[in-house]
Amino acid sequence: MTQNLRIDGERLWGSLMETAAFGALPKGGIRRLALSDEDKMVRDWFRAACEDAGLTVTVDGVGNMFATRPGTRPDAAAVAFGSHLDTQPAGGKFDGILGVLAGLEAIRTLNDAGYVTEHPLTLANFTNEEGARFSPAMMCSGVYSRDLEAAPVLASIDNEGRTFGEELARIGYAGDEEIGARRFHAFVELHIEQGPLLEAAEETIGIVTGGQGLLWFDGTITGQDSHAGTTPMTLRRDAMTALAAVALAVEDVARQHGPAGVGTIGEVHVLPGSRNTIPGTATFKAEFRHPDNDALGAMETMMAARIAAIAAERGVGIETRRSFRKDPTVFDPMVVDAIAAAAKDFPHRRMISGAGHDAFYVASTCPTAMIFVPCKDGISHNELESATPADCAAGAQVLLDTVLRLAR
Amino acid sequence: MTQNLRIDGERLWGSLMETAAFGALPKGGIRRLALSDEDKMVRDWFRAACEDAGLTVTVDGVGNMFATRPGTRPDAAAVAFGSHLDTQPAGGKFDGILGVLAGLEAIRTLNDAGYVTEHPLTLANFTNEEGARFSPAMMCSGVYSRDLEAAPVLASIDNEGRTFGEELARIGYAGDEEIGARRFHAFVELHIEQGPLLEAAEETIGIVTGGQGLLWFDGTITGQDSHAGTTPMTLRRDAMTALAAVALAVEDVARQHGPAGVGTIGEVHVLPGSRNTIPGTATFKAEFRHPDNDALGAMETMMAARIAAIAAERGVGIETRRSFRKDPTVFDPMVVDAIAAAAKDFPHRRMISGAGHDAFYVASTCPTAMIFVPCKDGISHNELESATPADCAAGAQVLLDTVLRLAR
Repeated sequence: MTQNLRIDGERLWGSLMETAAFGALPKGGIRRLALSDEDKMVRDWFRAACEDAGLTVTVDGVGNMFATRPGTRPDAAAVAFGSHLDTQPAGGKFDGILGVLAGLEAIRTLNDAGYVTEHPLTLANFTNEEGARFSPAMMCSGVYSRDLEAAPVLASIDNEGRTFGEELARIGYAGDEEIGARRFHAFVELHIEQGPLLEAAEETIGIVTGGQGLLWFDGTITGQDSHAGTTPMTLRRDAMTALAAVALAVEDVARQHGPAGVGTIGEVHVLPGSRNTIPGTATFKAEFRHPDNDALGAMETMMAARIAAIAAERGVGIETRRSFRKDPTVFDPMVVDAIAAAAKDFPHRRMISGAGHDAFYVASTCPTAMIFVPCKDGISHNELESATPADCAAGAQVLLDTVLRLAR
Repeated sequence: MTQNLRIDGERLWGSLMETAAFGALPKGGIRRLALSDEDKMVRDWFRAACEDAGLTVTVDGVGNMFATRPGTRPDAAAVAFGSHLDTQPAGGKFDGILGVLAGLEAIRTLNDAGYVTEHPLTLANFTNEEGARFSPAMMCSGVYSRDLEAAPVLASIDNEGRTFGEELARIGYAGDEEIGARRFHAFVELHIEQGPLLEAAEETIGIVTGGQGLLWFDGTITGQDSHAGTTPMTLRRDAMTALAAVALAVEDVARQHGPAGVGTIGEVHVLPGSRNTIPGTATFKAEFRHPDNDALGAMETMMAARIAAIAAERGVGIETRRSFRKDPTVFDPMVVDAIAAAAKDFPHRRMISGAGHDAFYVASTCPTAMIFVPCKDGISHNELESATPADCAAGAQVLLDTVLRLAR
């Protein structure tokens, strides 16, 4: 059955390039912040395209858009798919957008074939996935899943003092559908990988089985400022070399929990910051990620022991504070298996998502999984973000085939 | 002979505490920037004290003060000693000041005993050793030795736009003596160690045989910014972990050239500086010091090899640039031996100065060496700088005895 339905890669690419004009930047990227004029433009385009395709578009109280195609069993819950159309301040043409427009392409392909599924189909565009204008990220899939409350989201303020609620009304997308009332039979999100694995392995499809658990911790190292010329190596309490030891310990702990574990120190400050003064203070912000909750706990325990050893060996104080922890997400086996079946003719791998996505919130409401396609050099959140027409088409084809397996 | 002449430790301490009032700060330190009103006050006090002690005070064109006591051989060049009376913006009561006031105490002791040396004696107060108000440090011993030119020093400007020359005239210390015309038979500078070695070893006197050579180098590490969640450890080009490896290599290279060699990274910047982004760029400012010139060269060579290995292993670029190099200073064996003979009854060690001092410039004009006494926790350039009355007295005693050995 599904072999006969081939998505139109050129039509999909055309949609991607056409919508890339809304907020286009000089280097090929897009600035399309949530609830901006550019977001209104792409939403208007999307609504019109959906209506042209015969879909019924509804909008909920935080601007999430749902475009539904009836099935042969009107009592059945819809199989849903989609992502988001907003971008980072200097984002790319694919992050989120591919998932929505590939969904539109799947609908158009079904229309062209006159094929009607048993379950209804719903194509979703979630508001403010990026969190760049209003924080946090994945804001409105979070409200949809009721992990976040609507009232503080509507009251949240951008850098210029405008509220989410005012801006949502201004662009005409404060909808009347009750938030979260619409629940799905299953949800599938197609997305660029935002990492380098598929490209490096020359694979086309990632079958995403879950998301990493996340541990954030902050640290302060307290040594002793002293004169770089007069203090011998043996009498130093150098916060910089202690920080170096901590950074290499973070790396080693992650490697020992590899290949799935990762660890990063992304932000450091070393004081007083003068070439000929031994630093007395260093602060750092670090994180570990792992798809297995026990492994993430083991990383935290191992790191605490390493830090204690470094502090003792170097005569410095190291205080750390856990600032955030999120358990791993495990996607639904039925949806994962449907994707795997749909992907069997493409070079593929099962993998974990390193980044956050709307699907992680939706997963708490219905069986959910994700499809990844490669992006160039693993780069995203950047105007240089790039994906090939062939990979976008492959992703759309796997999305369509997965949806057909789920919606019959 | 010299055993009979004992300096008066209480009188010396009294001088230190009396002059500490000029620019006194609440926590016990001093703010007495070069050519400030407070500097004028301490200079006026010093001039009067010298004249009371029968010395002839002259001032050169950059404000260096020379107070001379005649010898029995008026044709002989003077044996000189002294240091500086200016302080850091929040400095201590001993840095520089001890060397000048211990010299005054030595003169007073000779006066009390009616003892006249063969060589004349000259007590020196050099202008702006600290370099805190007008840069660089050791400014006017540098002009005295003709390593620096007078004209740019007189034209140099403080943070409020006032020139050195204007301020020197304003406080009345633009002297008429030709700069550098007065040369000495020998020069001895007593100073607090500004490091922890003597205190840690419970020793009283450091016989300073020279100053370290210095190598400054700047580095830029170029990796690849990427997503901390989606980039596996094996595919990272992390500038932060490369910086950590460089910092530990600096430490190891210094330790391998220990105990005299030291190495420090005092300033770092890691970009873009976000917890969940792997840093793509890191910059650092580093230095090595060693009293042996060949060893300093070997440290530089070894570090270059380490950096090349780190860059290759981690797939990052590391560019370094040597920004400054100063050869080691070797003090005169005759003066060093005289200090050693004078120090024989005190717990002592031969050592190298890690910090810069006026004596380093004077050393290019006449046989020179230095005497160190301990300071608490090695701390200086800080209101907490502290030295005991007993150690100050011991230093003054060794200074007097050294001067008597040199001046006969």
